[in-house]
Amino acid sequence: MADHSAETVAEALDFLADFTTMSTFGATAAGGVERQAATAEDGQTRRFLVDWFDRHGFTTKVDAVGNMYGLKEFVPGAPYVLVGSHLDSQPSAGRFDGAYGVLAGAHAAQRVADRVDDGSLAPRYNVAAVNWFNEEGARFTPSLMGSGVYIGKFDADATLELTDHAGITVRDALSAIGFHGDDEPPTAVSYAEIHIEQGPVLERENTTIGIVTANWTARKYTISVHGEQAHTGATHMAHRHDALVGAARVVLAVRELTSMFPAELVLGSVAQFDVEPKVAGVVPAKVTMAVDVRSSDPDTLEKAHDELCAAIARIDSDGEVHVSIDSSAPRLSTSYQTEGIELAEQVARDLGLSHRRMLTMAGHDSVNLKDIVPTVMLFVPSVDGISHNEREFTRDDDLVAGVEMLAETLARMVRGDIGAVTTD
Amino acid sequence: MADHSAETVAEALDFLADFTTMSTFGATAAGGVERQAATAEDGQTRRFLVDWFDRHGFTTKVDAVGNMYGLKEFVPGAPYVLVGSHLDSQPSAGRFDGAYGVLAGAHAAQRVADRVDDGSLAPRYNVAAVNWFNEEGARFTPSLMGSGVYIGKFDADATLELTDHAGITVRDALSAIGFHGDDEPPTAVSYAEIHIEQGPVLERENTTIGIVTANWTARKYTISVHGEQAHTGATHMAHRHDALVGAARVVLAVRELTSMFPAELVLGSVAQFDVEPKVAGVVPAKVTMAVDVRSSDPDTLEKAHDELCAAIARIDSDGEVHVSIDSSAPRLSTSYQTEGIELAEQVARDLGLSHRRMLTMAGHDSVNLKDIVPTVMLFVPSVDGISHNEREFTRDDDLVAGVEMLAETLARMVRGDIGAVTTD
Repeated sequence: MADHSAETVAEALDFLADFTTMSTFGATAAGGVERQAATAEDGQTRRFLVDWFDRHGFTTKVDAVGNMYGLKEFVPGAPYVLVGSHLDSQPSAGRFDGAYGVLAGAHAAQRVADRVDDGSLAPRYNVAAVNWFNEEGARFTPSLMGSGVYIGKFDADATLELTDHAGITVRDALSAIGFHGDDEPPTAVSYAEIHIEQGPVLERENTTIGIVTANWTARKYTISVHGEQAHTGATHMAHRHDALVGAARVVLAVRELTSMFPAELVLGSVAQFDVEPKVAGVVPAKVTMAVDVRSSDPDTLEKAHDELCAAIARIDSDGEVHVSIDSSAPRLSTSYQTEGIELAEQVARDLGLSHRRMLTMAGHDSVNLKDIVPTVMLFVPSVDGISHNEREFTRDDDLVAGVEMLAETLARMVRGDIGAVTTD
Repeated sequence: MADHSAETVAEALDFLADFTTMSTFGATAAGGVERQAATAEDGQTRRFLVDWFDRHGFTTKVDAVGNMYGLKEFVPGAPYVLVGSHLDSQPSAGRFDGAYGVLAGAHAAQRVADRVDDGSLAPRYNVAAVNWFNEEGARFTPSLMGSGVYIGKFDADATLELTDHAGITVRDALSAIGFHGDDEPPTAVSYAEIHIEQGPVLERENTTIGIVTANWTARKYTISVHGEQAHTGATHMAHRHDALVGAARVVLAVRELTSMFPAELVLGSVAQFDVEPKVAGVVPAKVTMAVDVRSSDPDTLEKAHDELCAAIARIDSDGEVHVSIDSSAPRLSTSYQTEGIELAEQVARDLGLSHRRMLTMAGHDSVNLKDIVPTVMLFVPSVDGISHNEREFTRDDDLVAGVEMLAETLARMVRGDIGAVTTD
């Protein structure tokens, strides 16, 4: 077990108090939060973080797409170890997803700064706590937006012109909450992120820390079903081209897909299911949907992709409706750097924290960051694996252990244990 | 065939010209119209009708729920033969549904007035052309709203407080277009309505006039599926309670229901399919939908009802989701009065128009009116039976024959061939 000195206990209580305060912004009656990207509630949470940075002597910077950085410069001109996650949430979401990682990052950075100040840590790099804009992609598509701009995968100007369902641009939404900044982001030498697992593995195995080695592969499809609008009360069944019936077949085909493979190997879901027109008395003409298929094994994902295409071709050839796969973007499985995985394992051993290597099923900003710098991705347990739900929960002792794990990992990254080689 | 004197031809061309003008209000690029109840486009069409009434010497009255009446009083104090249909449409709708019946009713009433004026028709009753408010129920639920208030099935004050999806009340919507009136509606002695068939029977059988004897029975259900919100990327399939998967099963169960019975005996549809939340990355927690099952045979409908309840119980007992039938309102099959059916048959014979008795699958305002007065319901052919679709079409010769049929029927109703007994 980690050493629980009086100072450690004080730090733990300080973290939990801050987390409780932060969870009041956009709080829902059921114990969750609703603070989609660049809404008023996201703005409240961001101002809490700015205030926190101010009170702890961090310099706050905000870039054009609303990423927030709290900087501590130890070595003038040296690059930064970034540590963070995202404050935005899904609708009716849990209070841990993303927000835990941002606050844990800020506290870890502060603990590192304390050690630099008291002379117990010799820094090679500087440190910056980060809140990445719009990780969830609930209000603005695509997800992982802010970190995607940071690594150069997305263009900042084009991103600012993207709109939500109401036609509001990212630029206007960020301006409305006062977070469309113009600061240059700090240059990263390495990145660390901690997140709740959003799955049941750590809890089931009574393990405190997950060390992520790679992400699941995924394919994200946009599928549309085209039928013909008709009168529900007067059109004989033989003359119908009911887009909702065709779309229901697609939904069940995606579900069946997951049962063609061994348990827990393939995930498949349909979301963003849009029916037009959506009125009583009218057979729907068109349905569009987002289909999401994932696997821990890239070969299996491609087999699932082939099966899905075949199922959709069967529904299409049935003749009632036309089904088209409008896009099918693969997200490849890529590995986190071995040096980061080994560093985290050493830290967990040194702190006496139970730990295991694992894959991440969900996407995280670290999936972007690892494409440009050595990146460490850590998990703490999620009770029952529940996520994107107000009942999402992680126990206080796991939250506290995660911050300790992150702080020690970050200290070693700041002193230069990994990240000596930067890519550019 | 009907006699085509020069005057008849002039009347036909006049009708078609008016119909063309009327079809420009809310016109869509594909040849349809979009003028949902009490929208600006509905208002334009209504002002066209007021202007038409003015130009032809009708007195316009508008009641509290926006029903419009164009009155010709021949016999002071006598009740009125009403003739009409509805000007409101579904979204992306055809230009014939309802609008044809209102304009045909106005022209028929004018022809009757001409015959009263020239002494060739001795009136026992007065005549009023009618536009019933919100027959479709697309913007405001329930459908058949204006005629429902007229016959006393719905309370006018309560109806005025109903809201659309944007929260706008019927009262405010009618006020905004200037059609929240305060006139007393005329007292009906009988009612006539003509409508496109919205089915393929007349065209298939090369018959010009359908004489409706009764309406199909229907059950209209509100069904909700309750699951649990979760992360699409991180929640194992065994832990999911996906409301969209459960709802897809309901959609396909409704479709299967229709194939359990002989062809064309049962119709089943799902519309108003609402998914919450509707964002990428989130397994939906709840789906609500409107299910509509109809049959020409009441016993068959009850068998279909039992089958649907059993199918829903099976989906519910599967355990992934909870499915509830929140309401299941039956619409009984009721007959149009024999005296009206026989009158229409006599008129068709006298005019040399091919005709047949038939049921109406769709609901019409006449289904309400027949509950209080003798009612005649007429159909003209629909090409391919297409309806609630911009491709809805009825040929000019059928439109013109329908107006002749309606005018002669109306004339005999005004002279008192039916409707001598009023209910109250």
